[in-house]
Amino acid sequence: MNSRDRRIKDMKENVYEANIRLPKEGLVKLTWGNVSEVDYNYNVIVIKPSGVPYSSMKPEQMVVTDLNGNVLEGQYKPSSDLPTHVILYKHFKDIRSVVHTHSKYAVMWAQAHRDIPAYGTTHADTFYGPVPCTRDLTSEEIEQNYEVETGNVIVETFKNRLIESNAVPGVIVYGHGPFTWGNSVNKAVENSIVLEEIAEMALHTEMLTVYRHPQISNNLLDKHYLRKHGVNAYYGQVENSVRV
Amino acid sequence: MNSRDRRIKDMKENVYEANIRLPKEGLVKLTWGNVSEVDYNYNVIVIKPSGVPYSSMKPEQMVVTDLNGNVLEGQYKPSSDLPTHVILYKHFKDIRSVVHTHSKYAVMWAQAHRDIPAYGTTHADTFYGPVPCTRDLTSEEIEQNYEVETGNVIVETFKNRLIESNAVPGVIVYGHGPFTWGNSVNKAVENSIVLEEIAEMALHTEMLTVYRHPQISNNLLDKHYLRKHGVNAYYGQVENSVRV
Amino acid sequence: MNSRDRRIKDMKENVYEANIRLPKEGLVKLTWGNVSEVDYNYNVIVIKPSGVPYSSMKPEQMVVTDLNGNVLEGQYKPSSDLPTHVILYKHFKDIRSVVHTHSKYAVMWAQAHRDIPAYGTTHADTFYGPVPCTRDLTSEEIEQNYEVETGNVIVETFKNRLIESNAVPGVIVYGHGPFTWGNSVNKAVENSIVLEEIAEMALHTEMLTVYRHPQISNNLLDKHYLRKHGVNAYYGQVENSVRV
Amino acid sequence: MNSRDRRIKDMKENVYEANIRLPKEGLVKLTWGNVSEVDYNYNVIVIKPSGVPYSSMKPEQMVVTDLNGNVLEGQYKPSSDLPTHVILYKHFKDIRSVVHTHSKYAVMWAQAHRDIPAYGTTHADTFYGPVPCTRDLTSEEIEQNYEVETGNVIVETFKNRLIESNAVPGVIVYGHGPFTWGNSVNKAVENSIVLEEIAEMALHTEMLTVYRHPQISNNLLDKHYLRKHGVNAYYGQVENSVRV
Repeated sequence: MNSRDRRIKDMKENVYEANIRLPKEGLVKLTWGNVSEVDYNYNVIVIKPSGVPYSSMKPEQMVVTDLNGNVLEGQYKPSSDLPTHVILYKHFKDIRSVVHTHSKYAVMWAQAHRDIPAYGTTHADTFYGPVPCTRDLTSEEIEQNYEVETGNVIVETFKNRLIESNAVPGVIVYGHGPFTWGNSVNKAVENSIVLEEIAEMALHTEMLTVYRHPQISNNLLDKHYLRKHGVNAYYGQVENSVRV
Repeated sequence: MNSRDRRIKDMKENVYEANIRLPKEGLVKLTWGNVSEVDYNYNVIVIKPSGVPYSSMKPEQMVVTDLNGNVLEGQYKPSSDLPTHVILYKHFKDIRSVVHTHSKYAVMWAQAHRDIPAYGTTHADTFYGPVPCTRDLTSEEIEQNYEVETGNVIVETFKNRLIESNAVPGVIVYGHGPFTWGNSVNKAVENSIVLEEIAEMALHTEMLTVYRHPQISNNLLDKHYLRKHGVNAYYGQVENSVRV
Repeated sequence: MNSRDRRIKDMKENVYEANIRLPKEGLVKLTWGNVSEVDYNYNVIVIKPSGVPYSSMKPEQMVVTDLNGNVLEGQYKPSSDLPTHVILYKHFKDIRSVVHTHSKYAVMWAQAHRDIPAYGTTHADTFYGPVPCTRDLTSEEIEQNYEVETGNVIVETFKNRLIESNAVPGVIVYGHGPFTWGNSVNKAVENSIVLEEIAEMALHTEMLTVYRHPQISNNLLDKHYLRKHGVNAYYGQVENSVRV
Repeated sequence: MNSRDRRIKDMKENVYEANIRLPKEGLVKLTWGNVSEVDYNYNVIVIKPSGVPYSSMKPEQMVVTDLNGNVLEGQYKPSSDLPTHVILYKHFKDIRSVVHTHSKYAVMWAQAHRDIPAYGTTHADTFYGPVPCTRDLTSEEIEQNYEVETGNVIVETFKNRLIESNAVPGVIVYGHGPFTWGNSVNKAVENSIVLEEIAEMALHTEMLTVYRHPQISNNLLDKHYLRKHGVNAYYGQVENSVRV
């Protein structure tokens, strides 16, 4: 086995492991979602096959393509989102892996056509500013080269809004869902995990800005705190009264 | 072992099993929650000990009391909510088991001081009308016989509002949380499971009455539906092109 | 064993497997939910027995009926929702399996009496337009042939609104919950999974259209991003300083 | 092994166990979160190393520092939040352990810059009044000694608002997330569990104060309740008609 073959074998293992991690992390249902990895020494992309269930998937089923997405190896069709991955690799030069999911909280923001605002440090630890939501595609873009245009509109969003793909390693595509990336397969998956978490946090953060409700009475507060704490507490076992 | 001892041994097993089922069903955290069972042949109540962790709890640690809640057997203090159970057994004659939890969606309604409305058939399958929320206790009730008064205010709620405890086998105590009951330990726990589920369903049902949002375009709808379905679908593997 | 017996044995296995998958997928609690399959060669329907717990259910307990729902085989009563399944098979000619659940997000929309709008591509991948919610049944319909009328109102909804049952393989019955179908048992269950997911996504998509909240300051954004990334990052271990 | 070494070994075990409990309890993702313990006999703090994955973490990797956070032992860098822990130990004299997480519901309140109100007895059982949210840090505080100032602003909050750290064993730092503490490692972790639960309960309690929705008709209520209960119930199996 030469070094190219060894490298491709490793990439298949990486991409396989990353794909089956997605349902474990609660990021995908059924066959939704796909991960790819690129190598610029051998000019190959490895990506999940289309529509194969995670439960029966095997590393050797991963599809190998050239940098334009032409299949080089494997009996399976690549993920139908491959053209989007290809565009991202062409324009975001430092990235080595792309992840696409329909994780539900990120999708909600995509469906609401909104950027995810930077509401806290959990966000800031990974994304240096809002995670942008793309514009909607035109009818022509949808009908002609949908998956290519999905990649193009991501690149356009980062270019027009002067966002660096390293500083904000993810995007939400309007009406569709999230793509994240990183300099390794693990990092790209991790960014999908973080994106989903901050999407959920941000949703409810906004809700907390609207409502108020009266608190319980001081009597009830006292009763419950003091029946568990303080000198007259009577909840739980008295240590020395229990003979075990 | 005489028949009374055998019966009490069975009750301890029942009550133990029901208690450890509560965290498994996602209804309690830490040591919150308690289950009891009553037997009118032997005039005994069996209930969880107070503050003992579920992970180390054993059937023989269940506490046996008379119908007034006086401990007959066991080295452990009974659950601090025992007096509430006692009152419920005294007034709701057909019930044989009581369950108390702090399950989160039921608690939200308790904290909001609202009945859970009958919004659908999942509710109607178990509760014949709204699940009532009690009034708030007075300062005197809180300070003097809190757990007894908690039972009293439940009984008062059902009496004043002409609700039958068999038709609506549960209540939410204002600011506190749910109690459910049934003619067996299993049924009482099952009613807690249902109550939590309908509490969650009802919360979001109300939210759906307020907002609207524009749908995706017909173009995008067509694209996604038709890339998976119909004569030109290209998602997934073409059956006969895969050599496995 | 003749071919009819073999086929029925397979159907019982299919229907059993599909039923026990429902709680695993988080779509049903307790004994809620039922799956059936139809075969037009042998003119039989196989369906879950009524009220049997999933934990003790066995394939041989599945009930076999004719196309009108008359029990042909089995000591168990069929699911009480069988008449609804029968009506669906009569009118939706291409379907081979029906699934009914009380999955909570779909139920919320049913309780709110609203169609689930097509807010994104996750929806469009399976449902070619909004998932319709039926009108409420009249008093007469509820009192006389409730489960039959539930089927009728579904058929009426698809007919009046010119929706094809193949293009939109599911419905939510007002006040009650979802039914989905497909050309196989697996597909019908999968459609229930998708319906629940898009019901949850759509609920929160609507909420995101209302609120806004100020972002964190650029100072805090800088601090957190830059303590993990960039030349002065100090989070995590410095690779070569750790001797493991 | 002398008594100091034995004690430090025990502390490492405690701190390790508490740290790996955090993801199990659903309180942290990835490497987020950290737990420390202090001992005033030996004047040492033991804390999690920075950025080490929970899956490969070992007790002996815990970092030992003096009471000012200077590393005494261990090849690993301590958690970057150590200076915050140090400040809390200096000012809150009765506490023996500090826990920091990014648990999502507590973070939502932190991001919304709001105290968590005492809406019920689940809250009152642990926190004697609202869980306070700190003010936002100034640019100078963020840029100069961020983690120290995070500790200072917590102490300031408790001092200015006359809250006792024993009565309210936790805080949420604006834009960031929760810190909890206790007189033992177990108690501090338990307080993080409770804080997350009450944060979720309080969020939805507020939502329940706004909306209403019409209930289902009495006809539908009757139908569903009575098909499962009462003399004409027809759901489930008739006991004596089943031959098993």
